[in-house]
Amino acid sequence: MTTAEQADTEEAATEIDHLLAAATAAATPWAQLPPRARADALDGVADALDAAATDLVAAALRETGLPQARLTGEVQRSTVQLRMLADVAREGSHLRVVLDRADPGFVLGPRPELRRWLVPLGPVLVYAASNFPFAFSVAGGDTASALAAGCPVVVKTHPGHPETSRRTAEIVRSALARADAPEGTFAVLTGTSAGVRALRDPRITAAAFTGSVAGGRALFDIAAARPAPIPFYGELGSINPAVVTAEAAQERADRIARGFVGSFTLGAGQFCTKPGVLLVPRGTDLPERVAELAEQVPPARMLTAGIAARYRERTAELAAVPGIQVLVRGQEHEHDSGVPAFTPALFHAGPAESLRVHAGALLEETFGPAAVLAEYGAEDDLPEILAAVDGSLTVTVHTGAAPTGTERASLAPLLDLAAQRSGRIVFNEWPTGVAVTAAQHHGGPYPASTSIAHTSVGTAAIDRFLRPVTYQNAPAALLPAALRDDDPWRLPRTVNAAGESGRWAPARR
Amino acid sequence: MTTAEQADTEEAATEIDHLLAAATAAATPWAQLPPRARADALDGVADALDAAATDLVAAALRETGLPQARLTGEVQRSTVQLRMLADVAREGSHLRVVLDRADPGFVLGPRPELRRWLVPLGPVLVYAASNFPFAFSVAGGDTASALAAGCPVVVKTHPGHPETSRRTAEIVRSALARADAPEGTFAVLTGTSAGVRALRDPRITAAAFTGSVAGGRALFDIAAARPAPIPFYGELGSINPAVVTAEAAQERADRIARGFVGSFTLGAGQFCTKPGVLLVPRGTDLPERVAELAEQVPPARMLTAGIAARYRERTAELAAVPGIQVLVRGQEHEHDSGVPAFTPALFHAGPAESLRVHAGALLEETFGPAAVLAEYGAEDDLPEILAAVDGSLTVTVHTGAAPTGTERASLAPLLDLAAQRSGRIVFNEWPTGVAVTAAQHHGGPYPASTSIAHTSVGTAAIDRFLRPVTYQNAPAALLPAALRDDDPWRLPRTVNAAGESGRWAPARR
Repeated sequence: MTTAEQADTEEAATEIDHLLAAATAAATPWAQLPPRARADALDGVADALDAAATDLVAAALRETGLPQARLTGEVQRSTVQLRMLADVAREGSHLRVVLDRADPGFVLGPRPELRRWLVPLGPVLVYAASNFPFAFSVAGGDTASALAAGCPVVVKTHPGHPETSRRTAEIVRSALARADAPEGTFAVLTGTSAGVRALRDPRITAAAFTGSVAGGRALFDIAAARPAPIPFYGELGSINPAVVTAEAAQERADRIARGFVGSFTLGAGQFCTKPGVLLVPRGTDLPERVAELAEQVPPARMLTAGIAARYRERTAELAAVPGIQVLVRGQEHEHDSGVPAFTPALFHAGPAESLRVHAGALLEETFGPAAVLAEYGAEDDLPEILAAVDGSLTVTVHTGAAPTGTERASLAPLLDLAAQRSGRIVFNEWPTGVAVTAAQHHGGPYPASTSIAHTSVGTAAIDRFLRPVTYQNAPAALLPAALRDDDPWRLPRTVNAAGESGRWAPARR
Repeated sequence: MTTAEQADTEEAATEIDHLLAAATAAATPWAQLPPRARADALDGVADALDAAATDLVAAALRETGLPQARLTGEVQRSTVQLRMLADVAREGSHLRVVLDRADPGFVLGPRPELRRWLVPLGPVLVYAASNFPFAFSVAGGDTASALAAGCPVVVKTHPGHPETSRRTAEIVRSALARADAPEGTFAVLTGTSAGVRALRDPRITAAAFTGSVAGGRALFDIAAARPAPIPFYGELGSINPAVVTAEAAQERADRIARGFVGSFTLGAGQFCTKPGVLLVPRGTDLPERVAELAEQVPPARMLTAGIAARYRERTAELAAVPGIQVLVRGQEHEHDSGVPAFTPALFHAGPAESLRVHAGALLEETFGPAAVLAEYGAEDDLPEILAAVDGSLTVTVHTGAAPTGTERASLAPLLDLAAQRSGRIVFNEWPTGVAVTAAQHHGGPYPASTSIAHTSVGTAAIDRFLRPVTYQNAPAALLPAALRDDDPWRLPRTVNAAGESGRWAPARR
């Protein structure tokens, strides 16, 4: 290392240190704001982003090459997320306030008074994603849910859209300042080494990540190896298998082919929910139909040169699988941006069983517009084949419009397996497009997520940044507002009275 | 390794393999039982344990040397836990059923119908603890909450009470069989290497542990390093600091001294909630009072020779801290069982600041009947000193009976720190004795827990073994019973209607 480089590194370290010190100083005042005040601040951030949407979209257009309509929609998605989470914060049932009254007659001996609620974890580190310059980036779902939970946020920006990130951050910071949020509530840092240094810092209490298996696992390992390990909410990779039943193929082969091609090529296949594998019944013309439609899709630019390079490698790997047939050979095109564009690639793996035999190559995510088809027959045990799939964000099943008794019975083991291996089971639709709602679950067994019980999309995402604290026998004057009997915050609460425990006593038997 | 040893190892490996295969086979049928059926099975286990209580207590008496009343109470605690968790399973709000109706007018574009609930993780590995032969052992809280969640359980028994474990396991197994639970729903294994082998097995989906920092961290690291990491719910160690305010010392020094000695010597100090450090205001006679009372406590047998050996080392380490004063020198006594007994040991660390200076020795848990006192004065910043404490299960604060404005203001920073560093703040009582209720939280930042958002005591313990699955646009016939519109299981549910999203739209601004 030259002296100049060393000075740079030291400067970066000092900057990270200042920024984490500020986040730590902000943690208690931001956590202790009444829910309404914090929610209003988030609404303010949403309003400011909406007001700047034109400018933000222009920056993202230059940096990502994503279509304008998509980017405009993504800014909107981000601001809707912020407002939904503001409403969650206002309403307060996510804080799960529970009061147990003191119970001298409790079945196991006198029970003290206990009052529990959830409190924010503290400063959260968010790693922005490449493929959503707004909705999973500086002011995306992770930031919105951590801020709504009451945690200061430090975002490690993605190098794929630096200017978009800088502008977004500036808007978030000013809006929070206007809402009198403590200084240090929000900050950004850039560069891989800064991201790793912050993750190792004891002041960071949790991290959220959306990206590749390789990158995400490396960070997960760092979080787990800390002297005090912290939760690492990583959403890494997913093959999103889709199955078409014989009934569905018979009823609407064309619609299914169109839907599949639309879904796996959407956004140049750069969605974590892209259906990567389609299982179709043997003896239909679905493979040909899908191939025909895929041939017609125009080239689409990849997000970054790095993603394009990795995509090139992965498609070469797929093409080299023994017995695989290349139905559509994707073409690489030059693009003004310097980042290449691709037309879709489609592979036919032959019999479904080959997915299991060559699982290493065929059942790994390919980030980009490529998909693998396979055909199954009566002799195949689909659940057994799908058991070779690692954890997946979604499993998609296309059934007959009104499943018959036979179809239902034959689907049961497949649906059991789908529930075991994924976080969302999609019926007769496609997995791309993840609605931001209360019942959404965007997660699943590893590597879909490093934290199987948590979602990164939807209002339940706030749960990731909270932890319980119980107050035992506290003098009223020393209780947090949320737990007091006079209940100034009016949060939903459950109250357990004394004298209810008799039914658990051994004596009753 | 000799040939005989190798044959033993192979036999053990085969046995573990069979047992995990059985647990895996049981996972789906056990998970799919209606809540009532599973709850009834748990009630059956509780009844069977109650019926065998005399025999179980006799075995534990021989193996642990714990007092008979304590053991009898512990069996009761275990059966009450089972019945409480059966009621939780029956009631069903822990499954957090949420339905979003399809919404063609959703602010971000048409929203599909989404239905989410929580499903069991799959086979769970439970490591039994040394210090609770019933309540944190074969049929303890971890087992009860995992079974209630719908997960098969494999318990790695503790070597401190093998016969108690064997008998308990036999009762649990027979009771589950009588309730027609699938074979493989419950099993035990013994030995450290078997416990590690099972943790590495991909069929295990989560683990729960109560024990030492060294042992728990080693297992946590194994769980995190698996190709597919799994949740590891470890409750490792805790110093449980207690602070006495000047007002409290003035009001009731004697009661505080009695309470503290009772709490830190209870069960020979072998509770994870033992208050290990007491901070008292300078210039009171609390140290002398505590010492006098501690001198009168009779010797108590340790649970195992290993724990006794480690305790001997730790107290020697404490005695060697520069400037420490030994107020009560604990005595070691021989005991019929072969495991030694000890009278309490009490150390005076001098000024509170020394806790921070010698944190490595003074703020590490000592498992056994030893405690450390320190005195603080007006010049001391108590929160800053307590910030040297690692994550702790509890922080205890003794205040004046009716805190004055001044006391309240001066306590605020301390209570903020207590909420950051612990999972339960105890006022004017002592942390030993952990009520099994809804509002309980037995956990905290690392090393109190390896999973900061979860409790191992109380009904919320069930949350550790569940994960969300969302059904999108599912034909009614293919939905799990819990999510169907005809709602045969009558679980609590939240339903979000269409047309509600207008308030989040940017347009409203």
